[in-house]
Amino acid sequence: MASLSSDGNQPLVIGVDVGGTKIAAALVDSHGNISGYQTCRTDISSPQATFNTIAQTVELVIAETGVSRSALRGVGLGIPGLVDPQHGIGIASVNLGWENVEVIKELEKRIGIACVIENDVKAAALGELRYGAGKGAKNLIYLNIGTGVAAAVILEGKIYRGEHGIAGEIGHAVIDPSGPLCKCGGHGCLEAVVSGPAIVSRAIGKAQAYPDSAVRRLMNTKPELTSQDIFQAAAQKDPPAVETVDEVSRYLSIAIQYLALAYDPHLILLGGGVVYSAPDFLDHVMEAIHHLSTESWVIRQLVHPDFIQVSKLGINLAILGAAALVP
Amino acid sequence: MASLSSDGNQPLVIGVDVGGTKIAAALVDSHGNISGYQTCRTDISSPQATFNTIAQTVELVIAETGVSRSALRGVGLGIPGLVDPQHGIGIASVNLGWENVEVIKELEKRIGIACVIENDVKAAALGELRYGAGKGAKNLIYLNIGTGVAAAVILEGKIYRGEHGIAGEIGHAVIDPSGPLCKCGGHGCLEAVVSGPAIVSRAIGKAQAYPDSAVRRLMNTKPELTSQDIFQAAAQKDPPAVETVDEVSRYLSIAIQYLALAYDPHLILLGGGVVYSAPDFLDHVMEAIHHLSTESWVIRQLVHPDFIQVSKLGINLAILGAAALVP
Repeated sequence: MASLSSDGNQPLVIGVDVGGTKIAAALVDSHGNISGYQTCRTDISSPQATFNTIAQTVELVIAETGVSRSALRGVGLGIPGLVDPQHGIGIASVNLGWENVEVIKELEKRIGIACVIENDVKAAALGELRYGAGKGAKNLIYLNIGTGVAAAVILEGKIYRGEHGIAGEIGHAVIDPSGPLCKCGGHGCLEAVVSGPAIVSRAIGKAQAYPDSAVRRLMNTKPELTSQDIFQAAAQKDPPAVETVDEVSRYLSIAIQYLALAYDPHLILLGGGVVYSAPDFLDHVMEAIHHLSTESWVIRQLVHPDFIQVSKLGINLAILGAAALVP
Repeated sequence: MASLSSDGNQPLVIGVDVGGTKIAAALVDSHGNISGYQTCRTDISSPQATFNTIAQTVELVIAETGVSRSALRGVGLGIPGLVDPQHGIGIASVNLGWENVEVIKELEKRIGIACVIENDVKAAALGELRYGAGKGAKNLIYLNIGTGVAAAVILEGKIYRGEHGIAGEIGHAVIDPSGPLCKCGGHGCLEAVVSGPAIVSRAIGKAQAYPDSAVRRLMNTKPELTSQDIFQAAAQKDPPAVETVDEVSRYLSIAIQYLALAYDPHLILLGGGVVYSAPDFLDHVMEAIHHLSTESWVIRQLVHPDFIQVSKLGINLAILGAAALVP
């Protein structure tokens, strides 16, 4: 990997993707080139332990790239959960076990470089704006579909947070009142019908009626199914998988048209594990959206060919998003 | 009505509510006090004819109040349809028959006072921000439910328009894919299930199964039912009306939670003919929202006692919103 050098035009930052399982970090230049990628297993035994893992990962990147601390403009960190970036507080993170934790103060003490934190999905949206398909866009939405589902909103080039930092949390909008129970306590929330676990359990439910289906065979042979298994079975026309992908795509298309009509953005970017694991998911969703826009002239006004895209930054998006936090 | 006087602290403007049936205008002071209210029947035989009606209504207000033209800071006009306020163009208005019409140039020629135009629902949101329940709020949503359904969005104290001026047009978000046909061509759009005409036709549909119902009797005695008739019948426990109001309130609560999660606003204001004609509509909607928030802790974070309110400016909102357009 080419080594990166810093000058006035090319500030270097370290982007850190703080996950409940692993911490990933790398050096990022102003063009979004990544070097010195490092990971450590997250110690979540206490917030202090997690801070130590983060600092350790950052030090590994510095050692690997040989970058001097004075050449670093800062460290950006994407955090799963509710974050107060202004005061440097991790308000609530189920994955990390944080509740009102002073993050920036503790990290700067350990790392000795200015740190910035943000919710990881909001950071990813900034990453797309600075380095990805959102370059030059004023208004964009990044919709992340993985174990959880959330959108981040960029308006006038800045993250839009709302009154409680909840703006864009449409994972918990009810899309099917008679749908399955969600982690939040609601029924038929978007997350409860289009997240990875939701796709798997929908397919398993349908497979009861198809004893000879591929999904049924996988249930007997694999310890745990993933949404990727379901999309692959659907590509082979396995009935419970095909029905599942059809229904999930329709739910997602309805959520996307809500976002489109609410925000009228320049574009909507899809990312997250579920999206990356299924190369044809976007086709299914676009088909469902196309159906909506064939019917309605209002939807037609919004949907242009590049209106909905899968993030091309893909697995680098989390680190690039974190890097984009540094001003 | 007290006559209003102008000084440096109390600029006077004229607010004009341009409707397809009538033009209403009044003098408005900086506190939102209204005087000299006048209406004229709208001549929609041509854009020129409509401009003449508007100018005539403004002149009637000036004559009635005796305000001097030099004391007027400007004339604000709320227009039904898609508007380009920056260039003073009426892009598309079904009610007025306008398509790419130069509005401001023509009006200023006739009236001789600086004019500002805006979509009427967006203007109403500004009216709430300046004179109504939204005073001091940075972020608010105004949801208008009448013959049409649309929301207007105030972010950071300004109208948020989006890329095509469509932001907030959630009247055309599909809320029930198997629902009735909408004017836009879609099926089960919010407008097709909660607008005035949608409420009436839902109740009429249900009344087929209830030959002795109040709704059925009204169908035989009144030439045309209104949503108010249905709400009144529901208050008297008439079964088809009760079912209708229950379903409509549930649809509306789902749309409101989408808006709440998308924007996380300070408050959501409801207005429009359907809302004003049914004093207990908000109670029904709040009950449905309460049900959602009892289940989901995410919704619970958003919903505080005053989160959803009916506009108190009521029938004056259109004129006050138009007045609020003048800077």
